[in-house]
Amino acid sequence: MALSDTFLSELRADLGEANLRTDPAERLTYGYDNSRRQAMPDAVAFLDTHEQAVRLVQRCRAHRVPLIARGRGTNTTGATVPVAGGVVASFERMNRILRIDPDNRLAVVEPGVLNGDLQTALAPHGFFWPPDPTSSPFCSIGGNLACNAAGPRTVKYGSPRENTLGLRAVAGTGEAFRCGVQTSKGATGYDLTRLLIGSEGTLALITEATLKLTPKPSALRTLRATYADVASAARAVARIMAQPVTPCALEFMDGTALKLARDHAGDSVPAAGALLMIEVDGEPDALPGAVEAVSRAARGDGLLDLHAAADAEEAKTLWAARKALSPAQRKLSPHKINEDVVVPVSRLPALVAAVEALAREHELPIVSFGHAGNGNLHVNLLPRDDAELKRAEPCLRKLFETVIALDGTLSGEHGIGLAKRDFMPMALGAQTLELMRGIQRSFDPDGIMNPGKLLP
Amino acid sequence: MALSDTFLSELRADLGEANLRTDPAERLTYGYDNSRRQAMPDAVAFLDTHEQAVRLVQRCRAHRVPLIARGRGTNTTGATVPVAGGVVASFERMNRILRIDPDNRLAVVEPGVLNGDLQTALAPHGFFWPPDPTSSPFCSIGGNLACNAAGPRTVKYGSPRENTLGLRAVAGTGEAFRCGVQTSKGATGYDLTRLLIGSEGTLALITEATLKLTPKPSALRTLRATYADVASAARAVARIMAQPVTPCALEFMDGTALKLARDHAGDSVPAAGALLMIEVDGEPDALPGAVEAVSRAARGDGLLDLHAAADAEEAKTLWAARKALSPAQRKLSPHKINEDVVVPVSRLPALVAAVEALAREHELPIVSFGHAGNGNLHVNLLPRDDAELKRAEPCLRKLFETVIALDGTLSGEHGIGLAKRDFMPMALGAQTLELMRGIQRSFDPDGIMNPGKLLP
Ligand SMILES: Cc1cc2nc3c(=O)[nH]c(=O)nc-3n(C[C@H](O)[C@H](O)[C@H](O)COP(=O)(O)OP(=O)(O)OC[C@H]3O[C@@H](n4cnc5c(N)ncnc54)[C@H](O)[C@@H]3O)c2cc1C
Ligand SMILES: Cc1cc2nc3c(=O)[nH]c(=O)nc-3n(C[C@H](O)[C@H](O)[C@H](O)COP(=O)(O)OP(=O)(O)OC[C@H]3O[C@@H](n4cnc5c(N)ncnc54)[C@H](O)[C@@H]3O)c2cc1C
Repeated sequence: MALSDTFLSELRADLGEANLRTDPAERLTYGYDNSRRQAMPDAVAFLDTHEQAVRLVQRCRAHRVPLIARGRGTNTTGATVPVAGGVVASFERMNRILRIDPDNRLAVVEPGVLNGDLQTALAPHGFFWPPDPTSSPFCSIGGNLACNAAGPRTVKYGSPRENTLGLRAVAGTGEAFRCGVQTSKGATGYDLTRLLIGSEGTLALITEATLKLTPKPSALRTLRATYADVASAARAVARIMAQPVTPCALEFMDGTALKLARDHAGDSVPAAGALLMIEVDGEPDALPGAVEAVSRAARGDGLLDLHAAADAEEAKTLWAARKALSPAQRKLSPHKINEDVVVPVSRLPALVAAVEALAREHELPIVSFGHAGNGNLHVNLLPRDDAELKRAEPCLRKLFETVIALDGTLSGEHGIGLAKRDFMPMALGAQTLELMRGIQRSFDPDGIMNPGKLLP
Repeated sequence: MALSDTFLSELRADLGEANLRTDPAERLTYGYDNSRRQAMPDAVAFLDTHEQAVRLVQRCRAHRVPLIARGRGTNTTGATVPVAGGVVASFERMNRILRIDPDNRLAVVEPGVLNGDLQTALAPHGFFWPPDPTSSPFCSIGGNLACNAAGPRTVKYGSPRENTLGLRAVAGTGEAFRCGVQTSKGATGYDLTRLLIGSEGTLALITEATLKLTPKPSALRTLRATYADVASAARAVARIMAQPVTPCALEFMDGTALKLARDHAGDSVPAAGALLMIEVDGEPDALPGAVEAVSRAARGDGLLDLHAAADAEEAKTLWAARKALSPAQRKLSPHKINEDVVVPVSRLPALVAAVEALAREHELPIVSFGHAGNGNLHVNLLPRDDAELKRAEPCLRKLFETVIALDGTLSGEHGIGLAKRDFMPMALGAQTLELMRGIQRSFDPDGIMNPGKLLP
């Protein structure tokens, strides 16, 4: 779409000359994200303040111009790709930590703060913010909130929905508002905070967040368990989650993933049918008992080896297999299709078996690993050529069907974006989708907020 | 309002003769709740099934009849009082626990299940559902969800919003839907589950809930700390919450509350300026360290006595002061005005001081106690005669003003209902309220769902 001169000069006046870019090179850079999809925005706006965000939404609404919020573009679903053109609003400069308040276990941040920078700033106070995507050093809190992004620690400490107290935002109507509380508890009206979390920029721009902090336990033990086959490992996961000590990480790798990592990183990676990385945290005197409880649950049919790292150095070595996986996959397939389906923990054995069957049936390399304690499996389809790429599509649909049949859902943490939008009717009923559309219309009556994403 | 014969005979056909009551005695019983407010409904419908709930909403919508969901009527805000007449839908008979699934840490229940009955059923599996209102033996899960009700354990384990995975419901449109997940994690669309939690029956009838369970730690220690004055106790609360070991209860009583309890229950209740009841839970070997950490934080200026109960029997004795408080208050004042304001923990000393000043200024007995670890103070105004009752009103407004000025909010767990509806504009901006109204309209276009509640 062509943006009118009036509109552009209004934006320039609102934002300052330097904060509005329309040159193709800059637009190109802000037209793709980690999904490797791409579309050209008509302009890129760099926001410095909440007030600028308010004016930007109002201008876009008045001129019916699509507005796409962007943190750092690390999402995997195409959620920031401007498929209908319009203005990409980058929050990368709104990156100030406004307040760290350990006494009230909260921090107030602008949305552009990087997750990793926040964690670094919190560490001296003895606190952390639980959501810990692997992309932590280069993804933004705004993006984490908008995707409900999570990571290994979620199994014990929850996702952004469990770790956010309040927000400041601008709805698609152009109205600025605050929602939520600055307290650890509240029952004052509808929960707009959680409604915005996971809404992928389709309801409002988030301009400030009040985050709930968690005290950082002072001790951590890392364990590695290997199993003869995936079924034994999956059963161990269910056993670990059914006893009282919740690990702060319970990560899974299947045999294919291990083989791939071993080919890439050598025999520091164990040869086994499946592997679990387990971390247990707590206060030092509580840790031995907790480790023992988790170890007991990890033992069982099919266990090959259970090893606890003696120190932080050895823990790092144990994690090597997991770390080697990303580059190894990239080497095997340039077309990696990265899913993050989730099922109830007791259904993991069934899901893992189904994925193995899908790989055989569609003659396609598939690697499974991920946050097993949440039943959240990263199922990566790794087509190596065009024929395999073509077979990946029906395979994907079958994967989602399997997950839904197992009482699971499409995404545990990556969200929907463009990539899974058309699968939404498999996961949610028509009435549920219609209620979501009603909410969308009331926040964004003119449909300018990140159009084409999330809702089919 | 007079209900038409057509409407009533439709309901009778849908629900069965015995499930629809229009006799005045029955209507009277379902016209009041624990707020001591009252209004006469035109009919009472007892629901047995989800399908009946769907038909009931559809009939009420077609005839524009107000529909008021009711669990057990224990709420304190008039949230179930049928101020515009219409049909009260009682969920008391939909009280089946449909599934307890320890492997997946979840339970599926009908909304009429009593909180206490659920806890009893979960205990043999080693799990509990964290929300623990004092009314647990006689309030329903549906009511807990609709109010976001909480209790002492919330400080460590969260409220219904942190402990619910998914819901089945019927929107005011008459459409049945499911939302949320059966997994411990999900990022598939807007969070309708949390939106319904705390919506006080104004958006939808909840007909089924999938609850997230927590393993019950096997050991518990109870401590009692007394302080010379409320300021010292409030500072101790802030210290306890700023260190890594979170107690599973951190309850506060001010000097007035203690005096009242002592007058009622005798000198087993300590004489002091303020008291903290602290509970620490965990696995047995971890407990001594945890108790030591919390005790260290409890110590400080103004501490009179810190005592750990030797066993469950003694713990019960320590809780006596707290238990004596309710009957003692009732004896003092038949007009108790029960507020549950909440402020950031570090602001507790300021709030407690402000409440003392308000009591002096308005010459009114005020008792403060409650869930200090969440900054959630039950401020009870206890007018003894008409003159005091009259002075209570401006005092209440000043209390809310103080709370908002301290970054707090109107309600921590009781909700808004009728009682606090008109104060909502003090807590929430006009735009926030307007967004809430937009959501209300899209779930309930004809305004039949519990009209007159929550939103001003
Ligand atoms: C190597 C790698 C590892 C990853 N690991 C994980 C992982 O472990 N777990 C996980 O969950 N994800 C992971 N991701 C995905 C991604 O990092 C997360 O989704 C992250 O939250 C995105 O943050 P971002 O700042 O890049 O947001 P973007 O990609 O820029 O945006 C994501 C979404 O948020 C919206 N948005 C951004 N800012 C705002 C705002 N201020 N207001 C409103 N909406 C906004 C956008 O419109 C878009 O819909 C990984 C990605 C990579 C590349
Ligand atoms: C002695 C006593 C102690 C208490 N202690 C506490 C406490 O510690 N913490 C606390 O938070 N509260 C407390 N309360 C208040 C009250 O018990 C809670 O709010 C409880 O959650 C209400 O449950 P209920 O079943 O009685 O619901 P009701 O009072 O019947 O209804 C409450 C609200 O929920 C709605 N509702 C009920 N069922 C449904 C449904 N199925 N679908 C949609 N909406 C529904 C109603 O419309 C209404 O808005 C106490 C009350 C008493 C009398």
